[in-house]
Amino acid sequence: MDFEYDERTQELRARLTDFMAEFVYPAEPLFADDATSGWERPAVMAELRAAARERGLWNLFLPHHSDGAGLTNLQYAPLAEITGRSPEIAPEVFNCNPPDTGNMELLSLFGTPAQQERWLRPLLAGEIKSAFCMTEPDVSSSDPANLGAQAVRDGDEYVLTGRKWWSTGGMSEDCRVLVVMCVTDPDASTRDRFSMLLVPREAAGVSAVRGLSIFGYDHRTSGGHAEMSFDGVRVPAADVLGEVGKGSAMAQARLGPGRIHHCMRMIGMAERAVDLMCERATRRSTFGRLLGEHGVVQQWIADARVQIEQLRLLVLRTAWLIDTRGAREARRDISAIKVAAPQAVESILDRAIQIHGAAGMTADLPLAMLWAQARTMRFIDGPDEVHRMVLAKRELARFA
Amino acid sequence: MDFEYDERTQELRARLTDFMAEFVYPAEPLFADDATSGWERPAVMAELRAAARERGLWNLFLPHHSDGAGLTNLQYAPLAEITGRSPEIAPEVFNCNPPDTGNMELLSLFGTPAQQERWLRPLLAGEIKSAFCMTEPDVSSSDPANLGAQAVRDGDEYVLTGRKWWSTGGMSEDCRVLVVMCVTDPDASTRDRFSMLLVPREAAGVSAVRGLSIFGYDHRTSGGHAEMSFDGVRVPAADVLGEVGKGSAMAQARLGPGRIHHCMRMIGMAERAVDLMCERATRRSTFGRLLGEHGVVQQWIADARVQIEQLRLLVLRTAWLIDTRGAREARRDISAIKVAAPQAVESILDRAIQIHGAAGMTADLPLAMLWAQARTMRFIDGPDEVHRMVLAKRELARFA
Amino acid sequence: MDFEYDERTQELRARLTDFMAEFVYPAEPLFADDATSGWERPAVMAELRAAARERGLWNLFLPHHSDGAGLTNLQYAPLAEITGRSPEIAPEVFNCNPPDTGNMELLSLFGTPAQQERWLRPLLAGEIKSAFCMTEPDVSSSDPANLGAQAVRDGDEYVLTGRKWWSTGGMSEDCRVLVVMCVTDPDASTRDRFSMLLVPREAAGVSAVRGLSIFGYDHRTSGGHAEMSFDGVRVPAADVLGEVGKGSAMAQARLGPGRIHHCMRMIGMAERAVDLMCERATRRSTFGRLLGEHGVVQQWIADARVQIEQLRLLVLRTAWLIDTRGAREARRDISAIKVAAPQAVESILDRAIQIHGAAGMTADLPLAMLWAQARTMRFIDGPDEVHRMVLAKRELARFA
Amino acid sequence: MDFEYDERTQELRARLTDFMAEFVYPAEPLFADDATSGWERPAVMAELRAAARERGLWNLFLPHHSDGAGLTNLQYAPLAEITGRSPEIAPEVFNCNPPDTGNMELLSLFGTPAQQERWLRPLLAGEIKSAFCMTEPDVSSSDPANLGAQAVRDGDEYVLTGRKWWSTGGMSEDCRVLVVMCVTDPDASTRDRFSMLLVPREAAGVSAVRGLSIFGYDHRTSGGHAEMSFDGVRVPAADVLGEVGKGSAMAQARLGPGRIHHCMRMIGMAERAVDLMCERATRRSTFGRLLGEHGVVQQWIADARVQIEQLRLLVLRTAWLIDTRGAREARRDISAIKVAAPQAVESILDRAIQIHGAAGMTADLPLAMLWAQARTMRFIDGPDEVHRMVLAKRELARFA
Repeated sequence: MDFEYDERTQELRARLTDFMAEFVYPAEPLFADDATSGWERPAVMAELRAAARERGLWNLFLPHHSDGAGLTNLQYAPLAEITGRSPEIAPEVFNCNPPDTGNMELLSLFGTPAQQERWLRPLLAGEIKSAFCMTEPDVSSSDPANLGAQAVRDGDEYVLTGRKWWSTGGMSEDCRVLVVMCVTDPDASTRDRFSMLLVPREAAGVSAVRGLSIFGYDHRTSGGHAEMSFDGVRVPAADVLGEVGKGSAMAQARLGPGRIHHCMRMIGMAERAVDLMCERATRRSTFGRLLGEHGVVQQWIADARVQIEQLRLLVLRTAWLIDTRGAREARRDISAIKVAAPQAVESILDRAIQIHGAAGMTADLPLAMLWAQARTMRFIDGPDEVHRMVLAKRELARFA
Repeated sequence: MDFEYDERTQELRARLTDFMAEFVYPAEPLFADDATSGWERPAVMAELRAAARERGLWNLFLPHHSDGAGLTNLQYAPLAEITGRSPEIAPEVFNCNPPDTGNMELLSLFGTPAQQERWLRPLLAGEIKSAFCMTEPDVSSSDPANLGAQAVRDGDEYVLTGRKWWSTGGMSEDCRVLVVMCVTDPDASTRDRFSMLLVPREAAGVSAVRGLSIFGYDHRTSGGHAEMSFDGVRVPAADVLGEVGKGSAMAQARLGPGRIHHCMRMIGMAERAVDLMCERATRRSTFGRLLGEHGVVQQWIADARVQIEQLRLLVLRTAWLIDTRGAREARRDISAIKVAAPQAVESILDRAIQIHGAAGMTADLPLAMLWAQARTMRFIDGPDEVHRMVLAKRELARFA
Repeated sequence: MDFEYDERTQELRARLTDFMAEFVYPAEPLFADDATSGWERPAVMAELRAAARERGLWNLFLPHHSDGAGLTNLQYAPLAEITGRSPEIAPEVFNCNPPDTGNMELLSLFGTPAQQERWLRPLLAGEIKSAFCMTEPDVSSSDPANLGAQAVRDGDEYVLTGRKWWSTGGMSEDCRVLVVMCVTDPDASTRDRFSMLLVPREAAGVSAVRGLSIFGYDHRTSGGHAEMSFDGVRVPAADVLGEVGKGSAMAQARLGPGRIHHCMRMIGMAERAVDLMCERATRRSTFGRLLGEHGVVQQWIADARVQIEQLRLLVLRTAWLIDTRGAREARRDISAIKVAAPQAVESILDRAIQIHGAAGMTADLPLAMLWAQARTMRFIDGPDEVHRMVLAKRELARFA
Repeated sequence: MDFEYDERTQELRARLTDFMAEFVYPAEPLFADDATSGWERPAVMAELRAAARERGLWNLFLPHHSDGAGLTNLQYAPLAEITGRSPEIAPEVFNCNPPDTGNMELLSLFGTPAQQERWLRPLLAGEIKSAFCMTEPDVSSSDPANLGAQAVRDGDEYVLTGRKWWSTGGMSEDCRVLVVMCVTDPDASTRDRFSMLLVPREAAGVSAVRGLSIFGYDHRTSGGHAEMSFDGVRVPAADVLGEVGKGSAMAQARLGPGRIHHCMRMIGMAERAVDLMCERATRRSTFGRLLGEHGVVQQWIADARVQIEQLRLLVLRTAWLIDTRGAREARRDISAIKVAAPQAVESILDRAIQIHGAAGMTADLPLAMLWAQARTMRFIDGPDEVHRMVLAKRELARFA
């Protein structure tokens, strides 16, 4: 047992930290979530990405591919944490943002050479963006059996019809390809019912209906969260990703490390909040004393530290488990971090907001937006309640 | 001791409830917080207000004036609760929304006949709107000694310079008059240092700098939360509201019942959330059972009921205390409801969101917006921490 | 709506408060939970009871009987609160302690003249004590269908066999009569299956097996919590209380006001805790400041006040509901106070302990014992979880 | 970074687990906290200790001495966890229980050969027991400046006068030696004011005044928690442990690893609770379903798992920090585990009690006693509030 980051991790952490200070934090004010901009990224994003790529801080997430950094989950996790300090910008700057990450992983594992050439190469090069279309409106997303978008075989093509939402990034024109989970065999069991199709966003019959807001945030500068409509979209059979009927298994594989990335970024968000709390507490006074000299404020800060340290260790151990025993073996632990992370991080952000007074709720500080991000984590990749069920069943199984 | 609402209250509650169902809820979709609209109310608001006024559901909040309903706080509180079910719209429909309510009270109590004719009459008639300018950026608002906007006497005028924020409603052109709290005697004690000026929003030197967002919400359809700048604004001495140097006392008087109104509206928000939870729980199924048959969901609903009932009684008792013993005597209780209300209502809204899945965070449901409203209550009229201090000191004083 | 106690309540509260100060608190050290005393009350109890009876502070709980005080639940509740400040002693001093109160109510409502003469008269006079035998070991008490103790008719007698536990007071020889809930018709529905028998504690076949401890407390000075065994006890048919087969309904009737009494006493426990907290906070210093000047301590005290005020109002309103609409109508509210009270009071006691340092856990202060009492309330008369289910079903029924 | 226990740890864990099952759990019923036994251990303890010693499961805690196991803190922590599953018995069975562990460490590090021969050798051999006398009644123990017991030099002797409490084990006659922290130079700074004396329990002037109870538990079978009085006890100068004036530093050194041991044992307590919860949940039914099929119960179990995993990692990392960087460097982390552990473990035990119904509070199950143990941890070695202050100051220092 050893709790030290290895050398490569330490070196990359130092470089990322420097890059954040030099490039990312100063650019944050340029990313206002402003209706006037439409759904596109501000111009500075391209410059930031170029700077990152030049420095080799690029595709760090990707283990299996020559264009990736070849890091283990345990090595990548502490890097994802750092990008989480500015989660609207930094992950994308390093080409490490969902849903592109998951889509690139799928393409690198299951894509045909033609698919890889058409979509993976430009994604890895940062030339295009992608979306992932799985969740559907009006059905309970925690139970995949309810998904209804359907692709019907018609000669050499599939005809795709249905509606998806929470397709992050889908409102932007930078998004060129959609990975769409759909029913290809309605009579099969849940396991074999689904396939994934690669659908160009500009294909006939595809439309981005609207962007969903999250607590008032549109996330316009990352392409929003789209509701997508597919009305008789014709997709060549060659554009099925992986095997027909294996969509469900591929989605599971995609989620494992993805959840770790999310959780690590949340730890970065929490660390950012603690920094902001401490800065404020060492500068602002009320009732004749610095905020940081008030016992209640000290309690908030102390509890934040206790929560973060525990959470980070749990996520790192889970990354290690995936690396050493596989995502399947780590399923209990992945559920555990999904439950633990938003609970801790939301409460830390809430206190960070409180310490800043009403300003904490505004766009003058990143805290309210970070809070809204953290809150979404109790839904993304399954609600808390389902993860708790998974955890409990594991425990109970020891005694049944 | 008797826990029954009196007849007048019951009758007004029934009428308000009907009005909400017939007019307010159906109009909610028209009030999207949409950047394209600028900062103005949608046209339907005027119609709704006309309908309410016609039915005598108007100025219910106002006790002391012939144009008011003459209700006690105890009678008005359960009405405010009902308007809180749609807090962006309903209070204004009945001309019962802050900051107009507090401003009308101040004008009715302290205004000269000329001031009343110019500002109170059209406010009561619903022809204009107003704002209240007290909090300032960059200083701790919990300690009034920090306020710095200043009005310097110059002949028959004051010259007002300073910056205010969180001036609710101030972004809209409907807002015609600003009640501005400012220093008139910088050398006096905190008690005697401040005065209130009545400043036309179109006066030279006044500008609405920007609207502040709250968790991504601009509240455009209520005129937003403005940051206001006053650059050498010349205000005739006749436009001082009440006595010079009495601004602080008047602000205190204004806050007492205002806090009750806020808290009662929050109870309405919580009741709305419970209704939405129960509707969803009786219609949506997961894992083969209705949501309402899951023990965890039952727990959420049960706890909401327990929290609401306790909170409502506490607020009503506080209203009764203000009516029977005065706001000063009720100060401990006012602090108590300020602490209790957001804590309960936030947690109820959070669970209502969770029960709706990711949709709960979007504008498709009012829940996320209600949550953001509830969250602001931990700052408005003093942060929790200050109210807790007030409460503790009262308890400790019994033993000192 | 009116939040003032009526005159009779105020007068009795004043007298009880004086009596507590003069007689009860000074006697507390004599009630050490000490194994050397066996299971009997210390001698001083008889003196205290004589003093209370002399002053007319006797049988305050009993509404329906000439020997009772004739108070409504709303009048009695604030008196029960005061006795809760010393819950091991005071309720018994005023002949207002469970299970005698519930048993006296049952006897006064359903007892034959002979039963009343034999058991009710001496109970009212404070000459004997009683126990209530309902819960059974090894079955889930939240579901009455599981109860198994059985009384089989044999000529003019019933032969009673079974095992009960949590029979409070049953270890003491002062306890002369047991009200035993048992199956008389195993084939009937749950509603008609049970009857109540009046069984002398010295009857052949009755034995007090052992006293159960609660977090290390035996409650010896109130006769403990007995596990009772009934081995073929012969009970004359004339000793059935009320009608055969009506045991279940009688038990329900017994529980309603009983739960209110419990909850009101818990509020008294919480007020005692706040007093102790404040006393300590105004006398003890750490790090150069009085405890009461530390923000964290202020927060504990403030939150206690907020919790208590809300809880008390909820319990009083429930008492009023029982008085004005009957226990059946108040069922939702009774469940609500059962959920709310232990949650609030446990947390207040916990903080009161914390403020006293390790001494707070010892018998030098009443706090740890009070905490253990409060903790039991999450089981007595049904666990929280069942009350939450009742509450949720009521809410959901509005939408089903 | 590596999260696997090393081989020696794994092997010892397996052996300890077997020993617990074969010897310790079956003996638990013999350790009833029964007043009839006086303050002495039941006879079976000697047998258990002999069995453990025979198997080499002895003095595992001790790193620096030939009689110790030579384990690092990181290796010992997971073993301490296992002993925590039966905390009243197991630590002592393996001669790993406080305060003997801390006293043995002090004696091995600072004792003269004569002191080691007289006290350390028999302690290591398990022939005698010891106590540690530091905390004093009537002063705030969180601030050492308040300690008042004093040893005045008189020729070749010190004359010791004062009162101590919470001297664990001190009521038993097995306890032969007391390590007493006392003022030797009242005029010195807090750092240099104290020394430690080795005082035989049978010395003239020493008396064990009384045993303190914790939530009704006397802990008689471990020698209780004594209040000790020292009335002019004459102690030869040769019996000062370590240097005169270095008591404070030695106490600090003693506490570091001690806190880790406490926290690891608490994790064992929590694991025991989860086992009991799951056993119950897989066997008992309510309302037609196994407890483990109820969503609320699943939530309790899931959250327990999430809490435990995080806490264990934090404690192990702290152990590793002490091993690799020293207790001083790990001070922040030691404070963190002191805050985190009781919070998590209390709440897990509370839910485990709730799942067992009222039986959970009795001595029929270990849960209530374990809860009381966990609750004491919020005082032992400093209250939470002080540890939070330490933590907050570290964070704030980064920005000051």
